[in-house]
Amino acid sequence: MPSEFDLIQRYFLSDPRRDDVIEGIGDDGAVIRPPAGHDLVISVDTLIEGVHFPSGTQAASVGHKALAVNLSDLAAMGAEPAWATLSLALPQSDEAWLAGFSHGLRQLADRFYVSLIGGDLVRGPLAISIQVIGLLPHATAVCRHGARAGDFVFVTGSIGDAGLGLASMQGAWPLDGNGSVQYCLSRLNEPSPRVAAGVALRGLASAAIDVSDGLSADLKRMLAASGVGASIELTRIPLSAAARRLFGDSIDWDLVLTAGDDYELLFTVPATRADALCKRFDSLNLPITHIGYIEQQVGLRFMEDGVERTLELSAGYDHFAV
Amino acid sequence: MPSEFDLIQRYFLSDPRRDDVIEGIGDDGAVIRPPAGHDLVISVDTLIEGVHFPSGTQAASVGHKALAVNLSDLAAMGAEPAWATLSLALPQSDEAWLAGFSHGLRQLADRFYVSLIGGDLVRGPLAISIQVIGLLPHATAVCRHGARAGDFVFVTGSIGDAGLGLASMQGAWPLDGNGSVQYCLSRLNEPSPRVAAGVALRGLASAAIDVSDGLSADLKRMLAASGVGASIELTRIPLSAAARRLFGDSIDWDLVLTAGDDYELLFTVPATRADALCKRFDSLNLPITHIGYIEQQVGLRFMEDGVERTLELSAGYDHFAV
Repeated sequence: MPSEFDLIQRYFLSDPRRDDVIEGIGDDGAVIRPPAGHDLVISVDTLIEGVHFPSGTQAASVGHKALAVNLSDLAAMGAEPAWATLSLALPQSDEAWLAGFSHGLRQLADRFYVSLIGGDLVRGPLAISIQVIGLLPHATAVCRHGARAGDFVFVTGSIGDAGLGLASMQGAWPLDGNGSVQYCLSRLNEPSPRVAAGVALRGLASAAIDVSDGLSADLKRMLAASGVGASIELTRIPLSAAARRLFGDSIDWDLVLTAGDDYELLFTVPATRADALCKRFDSLNLPITHIGYIEQQVGLRFMEDGVERTLELSAGYDHFAV
Repeated sequence: MPSEFDLIQRYFLSDPRRDDVIEGIGDDGAVIRPPAGHDLVISVDTLIEGVHFPSGTQAASVGHKALAVNLSDLAAMGAEPAWATLSLALPQSDEAWLAGFSHGLRQLADRFYVSLIGGDLVRGPLAISIQVIGLLPHATAVCRHGARAGDFVFVTGSIGDAGLGLASMQGAWPLDGNGSVQYCLSRLNEPSPRVAAGVALRGLASAAIDVSDGLSADLKRMLAASGVGASIELTRIPLSAAARRLFGDSIDWDLVLTAGDDYELLFTVPATRADALCKRFDSLNLPITHIGYIEQQVGLRFMEDGVERTLELSAGYDHFAV
């Protein structure tokens, strides 16, 4: 049976790809040399089987998602990812699982030029904790506390796909014969972190957050941090063609607003800079949609054709709620 | 019952103490600004109950130790710690445990001027994953691959205390009436990372590693990374007064050499720089002991009064060994 050391060698050791990695995996610590004039952004997220991903999720998807959720956090700050470390707890030495996991992780890491510089591998219930470090020029971080009354609220891509994917896995959503469910499952299991979009926000957006716990919960966090409120026009919330097909005539707003896991960026921009921002996104091949406005009055209000609509939304997931 | 957010607020949120923390806990990521001319050293270690610390260990000790093992890794690279993140999985919201844990963690963090800048709190079997980032001037990292034939082998402090502490907890070691067992238990549960010693190694030591898995296993790692061998004089290995009292007339070399968890620094220094290094340590209030020599011939040899002694040592702990 291979040792912990063998497993690390086999699945996670690679020559550092980046010039700024002075020492990679294999010593007490890794040594990196950040470029001058840059701030560093740090994010850490733990995924536990049965909590953050359904038991039975393919190993490659778990590897992908564990890194993707962290890259999404960096994107929401406007940072480009550079280095990552991995803490992996495994119930047993399952080499087929490790091969799939490391493949999924590496594919995404390579796509964004991220070096895996360290970590550890211990025996325990399946849990993956990844920490990423990203870079941005001094004082260009986009924080969640900068939204101001009058700012436009935007969101990238489409919302609700991952929730539909999860509902279909749980049998709560009728499966269809075409690729709509497939598309929603790929959005759930292999989310695309919006790294280029995050970079495009620098210097223009007033605040940003990624949609991990649901549009409603994440927007509320931004509003609370900024001390403001917002009105969102429901009909402007971008749904994918797949979601529209699955919903048919009745959109499940609770699912769209609370399901989370879409890893889109939700951001605000002062009205005077909205045009400049839209121009930047023209070259990105990622749609952005203006869904509402920041207001002085605290609270989050949903509008439909200009009339406020009261929605009784499910509570977001809380690990320690009763 | 408090939410995850409440728990983080209550136990882990503090004003960033360091000027180089631009954004601390509370956004998608933390933002830090490393000083110019410095490299960063990154280390991550996961502690699982029942594997890395005995079930029933006091919460404050767990908090202390989870950070200490990471600071020890940084020390072994010559780095001063600066920032840390925490991933904590808890079976339930146990506020007494959290209060103790965060107290132990904070006390050590404050002692070394470390800011907790982020992390997450999830529900799961008790596991603590801490990542630390440290600083050192460009190109001054002390790696484990630099040992060369003729170098002196040194170790800080004393070896075997933590192993004696663990053995006494497991009932394998007779308890004594004086403070010897108490001392060994404190060495096991609240190790002191050798941060100042690590800084003293910069520019003088040729290689270093911390003694986490046992003097024998860790020295072998250094030898393998450096492509050399070593001879160690058993009688020179520094034992504490407590260990000498507990051992009495027969020293258990297997325990001393394989028990680990002492978090001392094991390092090598070229003969020409040994005096300069000893002078640096004079001011540190931490003894260092010259225990042997690096040799061309690969392998690790133990000597007693100049004669090689064959020891059948226990294997080091491997998470995935059968």
